[in-house]
Amino acid sequence: MTERTGTVQLYTGDGKGKTTAALGCALRMIGHGFKVYMVQFMKGDTNYGELKAKVPGLKIVQSGLATFVDRENPSEEDKTLARKGLELAKRAISSNKYDMVILDEVNVAVEYGLIPLEELVRIIRARPNGVEIILTGRDAHQKLIDLADLVSEIREIKHHYRKGTQAREGIEY
Amino acid sequence: MTERTGTVQLYTGDGKGKTTAALGCALRMIGHGFKVYMVQFMKGDTNYGELKAKVPGLKIVQSGLATFVDRENPSEEDKTLARKGLELAKRAISSNKYDMVILDEVNVAVEYGLIPLEELVRIIRARPNGVEIILTGRDAHQKLIDLADLVSEIREIKHHYRKGTQAREGIEY
Repeated sequence: MTERTGTVQLYTGDGKGKTTAALGCALRMIGHGFKVYMVQFMKGDTNYGELKAKVPGLKIVQSGLATFVDRENPSEEDKTLARKGLELAKRAISSNKYDMVILDEVNVAVEYGLIPLEELVRIIRARPNGVEIILTGRDAHQKLIDLADLVSEIREIKHHYRKGTQAREGIEY
Repeated sequence: MTERTGTVQLYTGDGKGKTTAALGCALRMIGHGFKVYMVQFMKGDTNYGELKAKVPGLKIVQSGLATFVDRENPSEEDKTLARKGLELAKRAISSNKYDMVILDEVNVAVEYGLIPLEELVRIIRARPNGVEIILTGRDAHQKLIDLADLVSEIREIKHHYRKGTQAREGIEY
């Protein structure tokens, strides 16, 4: 394998494709024999295709409730789980066992005040050389944008749910 | 599995994340037990992580040369391979053996005049109910945007290649 120097990628914006872009990056990494760890913040519903796929080399953990977080009034459990997620990410990063660590929806966890921005920044800055970091979620904080090497904003141009159609298996989850 | 009605998703824009978003969608589908077929237009380099990953349920074929297509003067081989890619996509779609068919970089193949837009539109419109279509690539034609149910534009906000760093394994390919 070639020498790599891990950078920070950030996917934000209101459009569909942030988490799936990170998952696609994971798949690409795995194909080259690298190991990937993903923490999903604010998610606790295990019926996601990526969790069921069980791809060797990709470890995904959730650290949130199955219900939506109330932005104006997040519960103590929401906060506790988000902090636990940050701790898991920190351990995965510092362990140097993974070539890529994805913090899915972490931008939202910061925006909602569930985890402290400064701690997240410290963890990212302290990563071992070669560990690639991916941050996803809308409303990314400017400090995270500044820290990132690559930032893609995914804008919703069009999103027509078919009349009467619920979120679809394999598509939205 | 729940009843599904296949829609058309389109990922365009100049930012990183279009192909990976499609790959992430594929991973999500596979986790639910669905089958996915991806044709990569204008790509012929087999050193992509997604090709090496060999995930059960995901079939990826390339239909292009390993070299870049000269936009002003595409070769006959570029055109022949792109048309072959369209034929492969058509067969995969009409076979009804795949729940999702991804036409990776097809927007660019249309823009470069390698394949006829109207034929692509016909193929998409004629898809069996339940087959999800994903189109990727910058400079999507307005007719494809009109046809799509979901359109995400991925904008490059920041893309700092590290000084002297080449495209990196697992990241750009």
